[in-house]
Amino acid sequence: MSVGKQNQITNALSDFFFEYETPRQVLVRNRRVGVVCRLIQLGVLAYIIGWVFIYEKGYQSTDTAVSSVFTKMKGVGYTNVSGSERVWDVADYVFPPQGDSSFVVMTNYIITEGQKMGKCPELKGKHNCNSDSDCEGGSFKRTGHGQMTGVCVEGTKTCEVLAWCPSVHDKYHNYTLFIKNSVTFPLFGVTRSNLVEGIDADYISKCLHDPKKAPLCPIFRLGDIVKLSGFSFETIARVGGAIGIVVDWTCNLDVDVKHCKPQYNFHGLYGNPAETDKARASVGYNFRYAKHYMEDRIQKRTLLKVFGIRFDIIVQSLARKFDIIPTLTAIGSGVGIFGVATVVCDLVLLYLLPKREFYKNMKFKYTDTHTQVSSFCL
Amino acid sequence: MSVGKQNQITNALSDFFFEYETPRQVLVRNRRVGVVCRLIQLGVLAYIIGWVFIYEKGYQSTDTAVSSVFTKMKGVGYTNVSGSERVWDVADYVFPPQGDSSFVVMTNYIITEGQKMGKCPELKGKHNCNSDSDCEGGSFKRTGHGQMTGVCVEGTKTCEVLAWCPSVHDKYHNYTLFIKNSVTFPLFGVTRSNLVEGIDADYISKCLHDPKKAPLCPIFRLGDIVKLSGFSFETIARVGGAIGIVVDWTCNLDVDVKHCKPQYNFHGLYGNPAETDKARASVGYNFRYAKHYMEDRIQKRTLLKVFGIRFDIIVQSLARKFDIIPTLTAIGSGVGIFGVATVVCDLVLLYLLPKREFYKNMKFKYTDTHTQVSSFCL
Amino acid sequence: MSVGKQNQITNALSDFFFEYETPRQVLVRNRRVGVVCRLIQLGVLAYIIGWVFIYEKGYQSTDTAVSSVFTKMKGVGYTNVSGSERVWDVADYVFPPQGDSSFVVMTNYIITEGQKMGKCPELKGKHNCNSDSDCEGGSFKRTGHGQMTGVCVEGTKTCEVLAWCPSVHDKYHNYTLFIKNSVTFPLFGVTRSNLVEGIDADYISKCLHDPKKAPLCPIFRLGDIVKLSGFSFETIARVGGAIGIVVDWTCNLDVDVKHCKPQYNFHGLYGNPAETDKARASVGYNFRYAKHYMEDRIQKRTLLKVFGIRFDIIVQSLARKFDIIPTLTAIGSGVGIFGVATVVCDLVLLYLLPKREFYKNMKFKYTDTHTQVSSFCL
Repeated sequence: MSVGKQNQITNALSDFFFEYETPRQVLVRNRRVGVVCRLIQLGVLAYIIGWVFIYEKGYQSTDTAVSSVFTKMKGVGYTNVSGSERVWDVADYVFPPQGDSSFVVMTNYIITEGQKMGKCPELKGKHNCNSDSDCEGGSFKRTGHGQMTGVCVEGTKTCEVLAWCPSVHDKYHNYTLFIKNSVTFPLFGVTRSNLVEGIDADYISKCLHDPKKAPLCPIFRLGDIVKLSGFSFETIARVGGAIGIVVDWTCNLDVDVKHCKPQYNFHGLYGNPAETDKARASVGYNFRYAKHYMEDRIQKRTLLKVFGIRFDIIVQSLARKFDIIPTLTAIGSGVGIFGVATVVCDLVLLYLLPKREFYKNMKFKYTDTHTQVSSFCL
Repeated sequence: MSVGKQNQITNALSDFFFEYETPRQVLVRNRRVGVVCRLIQLGVLAYIIGWVFIYEKGYQSTDTAVSSVFTKMKGVGYTNVSGSERVWDVADYVFPPQGDSSFVVMTNYIITEGQKMGKCPELKGKHNCNSDSDCEGGSFKRTGHGQMTGVCVEGTKTCEVLAWCPSVHDKYHNYTLFIKNSVTFPLFGVTRSNLVEGIDADYISKCLHDPKKAPLCPIFRLGDIVKLSGFSFETIARVGGAIGIVVDWTCNLDVDVKHCKPQYNFHGLYGNPAETDKARASVGYNFRYAKHYMEDRIQKRTLLKVFGIRFDIIVQSLARKFDIIPTLTAIGSGVGIFGVATVVCDLVLLYLLPKREFYKNMKFKYTDTHTQVSSFCL
Repeated sequence: MSVGKQNQITNALSDFFFEYETPRQVLVRNRRVGVVCRLIQLGVLAYIIGWVFIYEKGYQSTDTAVSSVFTKMKGVGYTNVSGSERVWDVADYVFPPQGDSSFVVMTNYIITEGQKMGKCPELKGKHNCNSDSDCEGGSFKRTGHGQMTGVCVEGTKTCEVLAWCPSVHDKYHNYTLFIKNSVTFPLFGVTRSNLVEGIDADYISKCLHDPKKAPLCPIFRLGDIVKLSGFSFETIARVGGAIGIVVDWTCNLDVDVKHCKPQYNFHGLYGNPAETDKARASVGYNFRYAKHYMEDRIQKRTLLKVFGIRFDIIVQSLARKFDIIPTLTAIGSGVGIFGVATVVCDLVLLYLLPKREFYKNMKFKYTDTHTQVSSFCL
């Protein structure tokens, strides 16, 4: 490389580093345009600082959590239906038993005991059993089915109908639900459990959730949940229903992580519980469940049509934390909007004002022949 | 504060409010550069308005939903295996019974009845039972296991193999599945159910889902689902399979919320159903299930190897709604890209054109000594 | 339209297309300001290219997946409790049996056999049974309950306590878990299964997951999972526990989709497994489960208090792919931040430098009377 070329590059580099360009501007001293323009600029500034940064926290990035839920019911029920006493514990009334995030608490059922195969000689058609069935004249009304299910099977032997007496409703009211929920925000590497600071074994053994007095206690009375989600206890116990328990984790991780606490909300799923039954497309909640057993070497089953409250624990989460990218994106696009403000003012200046020709001359310099004279003056 | 200082501040404030600065610009009258530059600017404008705003709806923010799903199967099956007739209802063929979003419909099974403990004197090794077992000579082929499970247990007493006769396939074809799905978009506070406007109890009692004629009916024929997801009915009934039912909520909440409707799609999970069995790492779907009972005071069990279709209801959701933040971010960064267009044109103007020195002179004013003369002229 | 008006429009259009405006700038030849300004600008450039584009991949949009999980346990256990031998297979120790993403492997239990209704004459109060119950003097300690559940029922007949002998722990250790997971990124239309390329039926039949040697094998030894999540095998087998198996899909879809592979992580849920039991609000995992049967025409049940490991398969996903919108948003807002750099330099130039009045004169042109003379010169 020749010395001359090297010098050239050094010069260009030093020129580049020791120079700096800044746009030349016209300072327009015009009250009307000035006020309009300053107001627009102040508005943009207020929007960027007040709305984007302070209100919407635009300097933060967001993440939703992956979560794991575990539930445990407690409570014993007691029924006395025409002298036949029965005690119901968790293993009897919770489906499935292992503590899933979605489970059913049985509140009512229609039982068909001792069903067995092979007793119906007329197993050819679908509706042959209608005539000789005692069950059809029974005391319970089945909801209409698209297809008759298990017609003959259901009409074999006995069609006893059992239902919880209203007298035990207050006990069932008092069943408790314990929710354990663990959430992880993968983007921020933060894991939280709903057993937050201060919720220790000692507190849990005594507390009961109350939206105001004990909002963090993870133990809920069934009666409270039903009431808070707007259902009537009598209705839901009879025809069943679905309740969503929303565990809401809205966390600002810029403050201490111990302020990241869950909030519990309850609402009816699939239709407003306050609506009349007629208006809803599908009311109630029930499913069929069979217990199989062997009697006298013949396989039999007890079929239960279980009515109950289906609880869905729904974890809803949104964590926010300072992040340089959204911060600078907000600032950068804010500067762009500032530019828009200037464009708007320029439109006023150059097209609406009476002295617009004067301002046009101030702002623009033309490169074609008739202006080259004046430009050479420069 | 002295009057002078007060005046000074008042003046500065009034100066600030009644002034406004706008950049001075050179209006380059050059055909080539003008056309290039205008085309770039028009392209940027078309991109911002057409692509970002209209096509990608960049003025909206997005949210995914939290959801709750409940399912209900209906239908009765009938089998006649070598004279032993049997009727199958929902409680027999759906696992689990309570209507989860993920469930299995049994289509085939291998039964081992009357298993009991303690009958195998040779309970020491793993493979002792191989020789004296009748089951091994049976008519069904078990898929290979990493470990032999319950070898001796399975070979105790009877190894009857039952399978649904092909003659009942068409019935099973006709089973129906009812899906209830409720979604909530927490950011927008919108809750929707798949029982949308017009899908009332009356309609549901009659309708059957059809992708074209009844796309909103939440009742599905099993045969339709299997066909739409590309499986062959014979294969899936024999070896089992997994089908995902995608409920797709893609909603534009800027229009009336009643247009937010679900779409149902069906596809095979875990491998393309059209592939040959060889190519797939793991085909079919089955699990073992035991029914326990007491006979002659001895605890026994009936073991079922259940083959079936596993349905996973997968809720996929994306709601969009106008939001001031993404709108202004898009505008602001669009202005920035406009600036890039100007920079590109400037490069052409100042480095590529023959008259570049002239344009450089027009655009730039220099602050060092040799240009101060001309600047004093201003 | 008159010819004159047409000409006028044509002229305006040609003016618009053949003209182009570029801001006039002052090229400040000042070493200090130049260096400061160039460093700021280089910093902004380095941030935009290095941080936003290369490190944070700001040119990509992101999506999370909808997923479907299916699990299958394999393994046979054997217990010999005081001469009563028993073999345990999958149908006995997995709840629920159908292969859900959340399931329990029973590791220990307390059994109460032959419970039946109606034997307790003192079914009035809750604690009457305490005195005559043999069970209370038994060898197992029940964890405290808020309410005594099924007191009388549990104390009827026999209260045998069975627990897996420590001698079978090593077998239970060797149970294997097979995970099938399918994820779909709806935004990008990409579906992946954890049985990725190379994981075929042949490989699966032989492999065993190892974080280093076989990170993609979807078959896991139970002992490995427990160890990797930090639990002690003896403790978790006795009191139960909850383990999260995280399947992490972090995918860059700009490269070949076959590089989109899952990663498996294991961690204890609900509290650090290394903590002492005292410190945790709620330890262990158990649920009650009843098997019903008929004996001598009396309905009886066997109640199991099942202790076990609850596994939650948690799918965590984040896919990224090139998208024009975030790319141009990043560029656009980067240009805006460039503008901020210029503003900072201008503040230095116009308010801090000694020659600030000179630079002010260079940069600004005033429109009020005392400067109009010089502007007419232009």
